Amino acid sequence: MGAVWPMPSSYQVGSIGVEIKRSDFMIKSNVTSSSVVNAAVERYQYLLEHEYYQSPYDYDENALKTSGYLYALDVNVQSAQDVLDLETDESYSLEIPIEGKAVINAATPFGAVRGLETFSQLVSANSGRKLVKNAPVKISDSPKFSHRGILLDTSRNFYHVDSILRTLDAMAYNKLNVLHWHIVDAFSWPVESKVHPELTEKGAYTSDMRYSYEEIKKIINYAKNRAIRVMPEFNMPGNTFIIGDAHPEIMSCLNKQPNWDKFATEPPSGQLNIADPRAVSFAFDIITEYSRLFVDLGFHLGGGSLNTDCWKEDPVVELYVRDHPGESIESLVKGWYEQTFGKVNEMGKITFAREETILNYNYTAKNTTIIEAWVDEESVSKVVERGYRAIASPWSRYYLDCGHGSWLSNFDGDSWCGSYKGWQQIYSYNPLSNITDVEKQKLVLGGEVALWSAQSDETSVDRNLWPRAAAFAEIMWSGSIDPDTNSTRDMGKVSQRLTDHRFRMVARGIMAEPLQPLWCIHHPEACMHPSAP
Amino acid sequence: MGAVWPMPSSYQVGSIGVEIKRSDFMIKSNVTSSSVVNAAVERYQYLLEHEYYQSPYDYDENALKTSGYLYALDVNVQSAQDVLDLETDESYSLEIPIEGKAVINAATPFGAVRGLETFSQLVSANSGRKLVKNAPVKISDSPKFSHRGILLDTSRNFYHVDSILRTLDAMAYNKLNVLHWHIVDAFSWPVESKVHPELTEKGAYTSDMRYSYEEIKKIINYAKNRAIRVMPEFNMPGNTFIIGDAHPEIMSCLNKQPNWDKFATEPPSGQLNIADPRAVSFAFDIITEYSRLFVDLGFHLGGGSLNTDCWKEDPVVELYVRDHPGESIESLVKGWYEQTFGKVNEMGKITFAREETILNYNYTAKNTTIIEAWVDEESVSKVVERGYRAIASPWSRYYLDCGHGSWLSNFDGDSWCGSYKGWQQIYSYNPLSNITDVEKQKLVLGGEVALWSAQSDETSVDRNLWPRAAAFAEIMWSGSIDPDTNSTRDMGKVSQRLTDHRFRMVARGIMAEPLQPLWCIHHPEACMHPSAP
Repeated sequence: MGAVWPMPSSYQVGSIGVEIKRSDFMIKSNVTSSSVVNAAVERYQYLLEHEYYQSPYDYDENALKTSGYLYALDVNVQSAQDVLDLETDESYSLEIPIEGKAVINAATPFGAVRGLETFSQLVSANSGRKLVKNAPVKISDSPKFSHRGILLDTSRNFYHVDSILRTLDAMAYNKLNVLHWHIVDAFSWPVESKVHPELTEKGAYTSDMRYSYEEIKKIINYAKNRAIRVMPEFNMPGNTFIIGDAHPEIMSCLNKQPNWDKFATEPPSGQLNIADPRAVSFAFDIITEYSRLFVDLGFHLGGGSLNTDCWKEDPVVELYVRDHPGESIESLVKGWYEQTFGKVNEMGKITFAREETILNYNYTAKNTTIIEAWVDEESVSKVVERGYRAIASPWSRYYLDCGHGSWLSNFDGDSWCGSYKGWQQIYSYNPLSNITDVEKQKLVLGGEVALWSAQSDETSVDRNLWPRAAAFAEIMWSGSIDPDTNSTRDMGKVSQRLTDHRFRMVARGIMAEPLQPLWCIHHPEACMHPSAP
Repeated sequence: MGAVWPMPSSYQVGSIGVEIKRSDFMIKSNVTSSSVVNAAVERYQYLLEHEYYQSPYDYDENALKTSGYLYALDVNVQSAQDVLDLETDESYSLEIPIEGKAVINAATPFGAVRGLETFSQLVSANSGRKLVKNAPVKISDSPKFSHRGILLDTSRNFYHVDSILRTLDAMAYNKLNVLHWHIVDAFSWPVESKVHPELTEKGAYTSDMRYSYEEIKKIINYAKNRAIRVMPEFNMPGNTFIIGDAHPEIMSCLNKQPNWDKFATEPPSGQLNIADPRAVSFAFDIITEYSRLFVDLGFHLGGGSLNTDCWKEDPVVELYVRDHPGESIESLVKGWYEQTFGKVNEMGKITFAREETILNYNYTAKNTTIIEAWVDEESVSKVVERGYRAIASPWSRYYLDCGHGSWLSNFDGDSWCGSYKGWQQIYSYNPLSNITDVEKQKLVLGGEVALWSAQSDETSVDRNLWPRAAAFAEIMWSGSIDPDTNSTRDMGKVSQRLTDHRFRMVARGIMAEPLQPLWCIHHPEACMHPSAP
């Protein structure tokens, strides 16, 4: 089997090499009105001309035999409509003959993007030529899950635009399709606001560490051309300390020290004051402004990790609860959800939120709401049990920042989320494993790996994400079951393919880290634990 | 206090800024015959002209006040002799007045190198100018430990020369002085051999993944210009599988599968056959060839992590022990040490070896032998108790590769050495802590952090080493005690300084990773664990 990552859902190869006729090889599409297709054709034409990747797997191999030439790649798209939504059809088929023209067929421009990526991975360099090693190739492919995302936190530390664009490139190499942009958090407010410019003035780390409207639009468009949605998160009402730099009047428990641990899971503490109508009005401003700037259908409100002690000691909350019989912090929280989730819907969007909203606070959201299940590996099943659609993002498997020690200056313990999540842990997790009812399984839209950035920024983002997010991507795209044998893929071979893919990513400028000694690529059977399953 | 890292042993600052007169600022030395000084002056002159580093600590600050200009830096060296040995004098003093000329005084060229680094770190950018913020500055500085090293393993995965040179740059920015080059191991043999070229032909991963003699000489010279010794390690007789690709006849238990765990701590298994005279003769060849190529006074023979089961089942060993009454595997191992350590001494070198040689096998080495103590935090005291000089490298503190999951394809557990070693764990470890006798303390020459490369290569080396190796560097250079208060430094301020230093390293092209949210640099007191000591 070849080097395509993630493995296509259906994939047949032959045993003859076919050489790319480099002097005049052309990718051509049947449509001209799709800017997504046009950009993709241009991008992959460029890559085909400039990439010269030779896998370490056959680095020292002799010249491979080829029988004929490949002259062109035709990309046939049924509809030229460039609209990404939550259920975009990303399917495609690809045929590469032993001589002549290769063909991609896709229902949408975004399926064409996926097919082009697959084609590009089938091409490798050998003795001065470029070739497809195992022609004829016949692929029919579509993703197992519709939501295959990466959460990137740009508040704890900043990422300049180029590193986000590079991350989108890498996502496209792995057929991931959602950048869940956790753009603000307690630490900094790096996003321009036209409605509340004081947030950015006070809350961005430096004048250089800000995302302007123009930059955000550029990122969204760049992502769309790679069939990736950009969904923003404005988490409220918790973890919002930085808003207090501009608006202390709408905050509770602002930066309590040194015993911040009573009020927050990490410093600095601070939550929007749920009893203050000005705080709701502020939240409406945020939702209104940014649901216009971010064109995606999804708008993530977070809503989890609340600390009730923060509000218990707040005089405004205290007074409100005393003066309103029947009200409590819990009812105020529910009221907050009701209003803010409603505002998102009013803006024509679908609300995404964390599981605490419906599980801990027992809030009954609209059934269109999509819930991020992250607390444990049972969370997904709890969420779908209540009838909501779910995104699986259990920290025990998918939090890529864990296991890197503490970021507190004087504490030498580990991170709150324990040890490092190795690629094998990611690969062996099946988001559907606790759900037997097929109808409920359909409510699981996919998953997200997460990079929280207390100890990450643009200098380390490549290596924090890759190739572990690639392991995730294969589970999301085609799962861990080999359709030929109907059993779990051989892990020696998986790691061989992943190492190959990782080297290709490095050749494309993504500093993905190595998984094991290079020796293992030639001895996959020898790099196994004798007593592991 | 300013941003110098590691903190000088004696450091006084004033409160007036002094601006570098950029148009004609010159670094000049009193000697011209030292190529080390000449190269350093040229390097820092270039850096001074081209570096424009502004600390995030005062990123948004207004223009700093300065009173006068600094016109020159004079570097006075007592001896122009360019010879690095195990006890090279690296001391220097530096005075920066509020107007006029700065002066470095040093006994050796290598002290001058250290002083120039300190000067360069005192210069920062501000509003288009370059200045020293807190003049007058008066520094008198020398290292606490003479051996301050990084072990780099280039066998599990390969590092091209440029990444090693970059690592030497970064070491110089942290006043580290030993690159312990673990150049070969079980997985690959990346070093050219003129005596046994078949080792490299069979054992290098690819023809591109080799160090030629010329490249090694270039690395050694580059290091020397930065006051860094390059000490090679040719670990024998264990962990030598790759020699078997060329010489299976001198090996025992070669790549036993799938139960490699009976014969080695990781695959592939293989040890030189200690009962075969051809193996000793081979080891002599290696020692002779490479002790000539590597000019350093130290030559590391490793010698630890042996597996006796490997030899128990070897027919040659079995026969030898049967035919030689009184002999055993243990006595053969001792004989191996006796011969190979002796060969190193014969070549005019000092043997470095791992603690197992003297502690587990009870071998009595010459007392010039220097022992690497790595097994636990008591190892250093055990080694000096026996009268040997010691290098502290406990895996529980100094192994920078740990906590990154397993590299075995089918195993989702953690690394053998447990969790990630955060910078706080490194900083809070004192190699002398278990040794009360002052004379015995003097036997501790210093320490080494280690980067074993099963999951590391040139794409991730910066971030695997830095800034954690910087935390180590300060402990090695001046320790964790603030001389002004005679108590442990305030960790909030240490992490503030280290963050500043890390950003300077990034500005110099070293992709050191962030330690905490940037927010903490302005709120160091707020980023503390309330219940930590």
